[in-house]
Amino acid sequence: MPEPVVVDAMGGDHGPAETVRGAVTALREHGVPVLLVGRAEEIRRELARYGASGEIEVVHAEEAVPMGERGPGALSGTSSITVGCELLSRGAGAAFVSAGSTGAVVSCAIRSVGRAESVLRPALAIALPQVTGGSSVLLDAGATADPTPEMVAGFALLGTSYARLVLGTAEPTVGLLSIGSEPGKGNRLTRRTEELLRRLPLRFHGTVEGHDVLAGVVDVIVTDGFTGNVVLKNVEGAVRTTLAMIAHAGIARPDELREVAGRYDPETHGGAALLGLSRTVVVAHGSSRARTIARACVVARDLARGGKPVRAPGHRAAEPAR
Amino acid sequence: MPEPVVVDAMGGDHGPAETVRGAVTALREHGVPVLLVGRAEEIRRELARYGASGEIEVVHAEEAVPMGERGPGALSGTSSITVGCELLSRGAGAAFVSAGSTGAVVSCAIRSVGRAESVLRPALAIALPQVTGGSSVLLDAGATADPTPEMVAGFALLGTSYARLVLGTAEPTVGLLSIGSEPGKGNRLTRRTEELLRRLPLRFHGTVEGHDVLAGVVDVIVTDGFTGNVVLKNVEGAVRTTLAMIAHAGIARPDELREVAGRYDPETHGGAALLGLSRTVVVAHGSSRARTIARACVVARDLARGGKPVRAPGHRAAEPAR
Repeated sequence: MPEPVVVDAMGGDHGPAETVRGAVTALREHGVPVLLVGRAEEIRRELARYGASGEIEVVHAEEAVPMGERGPGALSGTSSITVGCELLSRGAGAAFVSAGSTGAVVSCAIRSVGRAESVLRPALAIALPQVTGGSSVLLDAGATADPTPEMVAGFALLGTSYARLVLGTAEPTVGLLSIGSEPGKGNRLTRRTEELLRRLPLRFHGTVEGHDVLAGVVDVIVTDGFTGNVVLKNVEGAVRTTLAMIAHAGIARPDELREVAGRYDPETHGGAALLGLSRTVVVAHGSSRARTIARACVVARDLARGGKPVRAPGHRAAEPAR
Repeated sequence: MPEPVVVDAMGGDHGPAETVRGAVTALREHGVPVLLVGRAEEIRRELARYGASGEIEVVHAEEAVPMGERGPGALSGTSSITVGCELLSRGAGAAFVSAGSTGAVVSCAIRSVGRAESVLRPALAIALPQVTGGSSVLLDAGATADPTPEMVAGFALLGTSYARLVLGTAEPTVGLLSIGSEPGKGNRLTRRTEELLRRLPLRFHGTVEGHDVLAGVVDVIVTDGFTGNVVLKNVEGAVRTTLAMIAHAGIARPDELREVAGRYDPETHGGAALLGLSRTVVVAHGSSRARTIARACVVARDLARGGKPVRAPGHRAAEPAR
């Protein structure tokens, strides 16, 4: 039996009702072994609804972290996030999935789950839909606001691994987010990072600009956690604003626009993956329903598999998620 | 007679045909005194079409800078951009409008036109339409990729002045683009800049995030030139991608979407203003037609007026564009 994906049953806006249902779906429909962490009584009540009480192990954690809370200060040792991360660091789980506050999960995981070998700094990776179809991965989306050039270059390796394991891209291309393609453009960070990227064993396309983020130019878009977080939220805002303007102009009905809006919906992508730790951590959006939690469990399992140095034959050949 | 707005007749994709027509429109419809710089013979031929040969002064400059070229290296002393900036530095013009390469105009202007008093570093300001109607100004959109916190705080003063003079906002609010509103979030640059902004005589709203850029939360969005440039191009790309997806889904016809696309069109806003120099410089988009050139001349005139420490009674009372 492979190590389970640990699921934070208390995270997210909808609590155990959706997280437990998502975990059951992950196990039954996708064959992902799961373990639930949170208030045992509530979890067991939900499991019983699906007749799944005997199938899924539960680890009790007394506290749920409110969605607004962030940062290490907000977490007590009895929160489901802390207990989930500790299960990982003790080797009792292959991955952790939470729909809790991104800030709380990221800081807890970075503190308690060790970094993978040869990784300078973890990064948060998000899949973004591209106008050409398919998805690219953007990282760092906010784990490290002030990285060194060496760290950003390392994010490119993490992103390449993610693109192979999660997006199924055999030979991912990498672009460095910057401000102009001429030599000498960019800022100090990108100029030095570009030099480093040219020496790494990956398919480096060169720099890309803000308008390339959704244009399908590269498979992996690499940047510092400050710019990445601003860009990610900016995409969400720009898409929302454009759809609102179209609805307001009476060109299309809001329900007709829903399908397009859905492509940018965090629900579709399963969440943000914190890469570069010795174990995998996936942060699902706070608004996640069961389907998204299940998808996050699949992504977590795939990333965790890829990250194992020794694998059984038949597993997808992929670079370890360093 | 007030000092004229110097117009680069050779800049942009459409050359003198559109720039000269735009200058004539600025003069005749908006009462903006203009002066054209570029190949005198070509300019005079265009002026003659409108019977405007006697109305507008022409200064000869032999060379036109190709749109692809950027940076100081690309500019000879006889280019229309160099000659235009020199006219400003000699006091022969109040402002310079060019649809030439942004990089070339910005670097030439920064070198030859002096900084305004008490300004640490100039910034490029762009008006962005907001979902609430109206516009906000984003700066720096790319003049300074690695500013100090003191420089970014100074951009807030420049942006406040722009919002008053160009957008007509009496008491503009300022937001610092960052990644989270909790204390301690952001990067080193924004944490220090936030402290400085709290001490300046302006309406500081606090930090804003990527999704607030088009949400009408503040009138002035201030950031470093790297992030600003990425965000600006990211907005353009995200809007274009969303419209393409809607057209592709068959929900609305491309011609119906044109009106919404037009709101983000650089044509609508007259261009990017380089603020903080002793004279005003406005860079119109390379694709600008006559209407946009004329609009850029009006913006340049308004900014130049506002920047003058002594003004005739009846002028709008506004903080100088430092």
